[in-house]
Amino acid sequence: LAKHDLAQLAQKIERLHAADVAKVLESLPQDERLVIWDLVHSDRDGEVLLEVSDSVRDTLIEVMDREEILNAASTLDTDELADLAPDLPEGMMQDVFTALPIDDREKLRFVMSYDEDTIGALMDFDLVTVRGDVTIEVALRYLRRMDSLPDHTDKLFVTDRDGLFEGVIHLKTLLLNDPETVVADVMEADAVRFHPEDKARDGADAFERYDLVSAPVVDEVDRLVGRVTIDAVVDFIRESSDEERLSQVGLSEEEDIFAPVRKSVKNRAPWLAVNLVTAIVAAQVIGLFEGSIQELVALAVLMPIVAGMGGNVGNQTITMIVRELAFRKLGGGDIRLLYGKELKVALINGIVWGGILGLVTFLMYQNPGVSAVMVAAVSLNFLSAAFFGVTIPILRTRMGRDPALGSAVMITAITDSGGFFIFLGLATLFLL
Amino acid sequence: LAKHDLAQLAQKIERLHAADVAKVLESLPQDERLVIWDLVHSDRDGEVLLEVSDSVRDTLIEVMDREEILNAASTLDTDELADLAPDLPEGMMQDVFTALPIDDREKLRFVMSYDEDTIGALMDFDLVTVRGDVTIEVALRYLRRMDSLPDHTDKLFVTDRDGLFEGVIHLKTLLLNDPETVVADVMEADAVRFHPEDKARDGADAFERYDLVSAPVVDEVDRLVGRVTIDAVVDFIRESSDEERLSQVGLSEEEDIFAPVRKSVKNRAPWLAVNLVTAIVAAQVIGLFEGSIQELVALAVLMPIVAGMGGNVGNQTITMIVRELAFRKLGGGDIRLLYGKELKVALINGIVWGGILGLVTFLMYQNPGVSAVMVAAVSLNFLSAAFFGVTIPILRTRMGRDPALGSAVMITAITDSGGFFIFLGLATLFLL
Repeated sequence: LAKHDLAQLAQKIERLHAADVAKVLESLPQDERLVIWDLVHSDRDGEVLLEVSDSVRDTLIEVMDREEILNAASTLDTDELADLAPDLPEGMMQDVFTALPIDDREKLRFVMSYDEDTIGALMDFDLVTVRGDVTIEVALRYLRRMDSLPDHTDKLFVTDRDGLFEGVIHLKTLLLNDPETVVADVMEADAVRFHPEDKARDGADAFERYDLVSAPVVDEVDRLVGRVTIDAVVDFIRESSDEERLSQVGLSEEEDIFAPVRKSVKNRAPWLAVNLVTAIVAAQVIGLFEGSIQELVALAVLMPIVAGMGGNVGNQTITMIVRELAFRKLGGGDIRLLYGKELKVALINGIVWGGILGLVTFLMYQNPGVSAVMVAAVSLNFLSAAFFGVTIPILRTRMGRDPALGSAVMITAITDSGGFFIFLGLATLFLL
Repeated sequence: LAKHDLAQLAQKIERLHAADVAKVLESLPQDERLVIWDLVHSDRDGEVLLEVSDSVRDTLIEVMDREEILNAASTLDTDELADLAPDLPEGMMQDVFTALPIDDREKLRFVMSYDEDTIGALMDFDLVTVRGDVTIEVALRYLRRMDSLPDHTDKLFVTDRDGLFEGVIHLKTLLLNDPETVVADVMEADAVRFHPEDKARDGADAFERYDLVSAPVVDEVDRLVGRVTIDAVVDFIRESSDEERLSQVGLSEEEDIFAPVRKSVKNRAPWLAVNLVTAIVAAQVIGLFEGSIQELVALAVLMPIVAGMGGNVGNQTITMIVRELAFRKLGGGDIRLLYGKELKVALINGIVWGGILGLVTFLMYQNPGVSAVMVAAVSLNFLSAAFFGVTIPILRTRMGRDPALGSAVMITAITDSGGFFIFLGLATLFLL
């Protein structure tokens, strides 16, 4: 590209919304991405960094020097800095911190003290508060003195003279009511509020259920400390569903499709290692029955059918349960019902599909014994798949772990080894 | 439960938000769910039906009579009716339709004419419009004459005297500016707007990117026809990520964890049928090599390792690509890069993990030939897994299909049959 073209491109980028610049950067392979990144005006580096995905953010920060990073950081709010912090180079955060006014340091320390799955990590400090004992007229006059209101200000937060939270008042309430009305008389005193240590997932549920745009965050003595807005919630929902999907096959969010090969290999290694072990276990199970296979080679042909279909049944059950657990806890009664239902479904499926496979087996080998073992093995493996499909995610939740993580790999390990053992075991018992 | 307790329970339910009642209903098994449903006041039936999931909605509507359904429908807005319509019993929709005022019939017909993955299906008609040539003072007076503003009204839609869309004006702009200002002077003329036939997914992206709370929908001549709000977008995001996750293992959203066994069996049948066929194909592939297995039974022991690890690699790749395709289209250059990257990752992984497996194999059988075949087969199957892991979702997208649907089943079919063929084929060629 000639210098002239680059200048034109830079102008075009200038006119784009930061989120659109981020989208462009994400859709480009590494080399071209860095060319464009270079063209982004340094004033906008901060907001663009906020918008890109974690993996792309890493690649961009890698090519920035100290000066540029500090400059980008200086354009951001404290809650935004907190989002960026984990991706900054070692030690850099201290410099960013020192560059902040005392007041903002406090806030940054506060936000960063909360886990990323809590409300504390989602909140910001762009509060517009109003006293409950003033009239709407006074509140409106106060607002007019501000140049602008923060994004997603659909309501003001009402506090008493000690800064304790009393309720919320919607902008539309301000607009629709007589200016002489006292704020406390028309505010919502029972509005949904959060605590910084609340689970972000529960907060997201509340936003969805009550169709919120913003909500106050209060501490244990009801002092107003911040707010959560729907855009942070949407980002959280999108990211967690994304993470969950990837984690089912053991991937992390750190990898994007243009990630360097080295990074991808590293990202995918842990579950391949787990799978290596489970595959070797499955092989050992088969190894136990080498004699049987030698005697009746049909067993080697048929065993992957038993394992494979069991895997499918197990994955259907586990996906269903993991999804349910994403919404809510399951009580003891629920769990009993669930086992009952899944085992019944598995039994019916086992008899139906096992029956068909028995027939297919008979057509292949004209051996009624092999067919009967096939039907029995498929049914039993389906039952085991259903049992572990319910048990694994529930146990993992009980242990405080993510039920989705690697669930596909685990259930497949069980249906493989289990399926081989059941099929070859039954065959050895009854056919040889 | 005694009558007295039921009356108390009914009172408690009365005090709950409709979304909370929905959550209670969803978390209960069928029998108890219907007891509670009976206690919900009939005025609220409509809003509760809107909040529950599709599968629970079916079970609730099943026990309602004609009268009750019509009554529930009469409490809903046209856009809400459109959401409910697909779940109503055959013929019932006609009655609902006839009961509507002419004006609403038009709107309902309009919304229902759009696919559920378009903006048209997400929109509602709760518009507050204002003329561009009036002052803020006039606009405020007009607002004060309304009892209330629709939920999620963060902005008014500005039209000219012919009802053509001109821009939007935020409530906060109304609040902060001098009442004498003319609306057109402070409105946003370049605000994001949608057309009813736009993809809902693109709309959701725009809401996320530009942090919108509401946005106008206009027709081809820029006439304002409706609006989309963030709550509809959040529901859409949640539902589509849910659907995608389930569809990867071939499940539909129609089944909840307490669905009747009959329904679950039916829901899971299609992909089990597909899996039956792919499993039989894999068995046939093994069948081709019965002679080789008879001669060297170690092959039967080792072949599931090759297939299983290939499946894992394939699922990692396909999950990654499906997730990427959920965000954006991939261009020709992207696709070439992607093949290059995934094949490189697969090759490195094949050599690393294949190497380890070769070693394990040697420890098991002390046969260098078998070890060498193992390394080669694992590497080749990884390459095939990566190739098809990229190809399947891209091809499906090109054909206008959902790339997620059954992707796990398909890639596993390829890595199973392919893995067996590669491993047993190489062994037959070089070892026997």
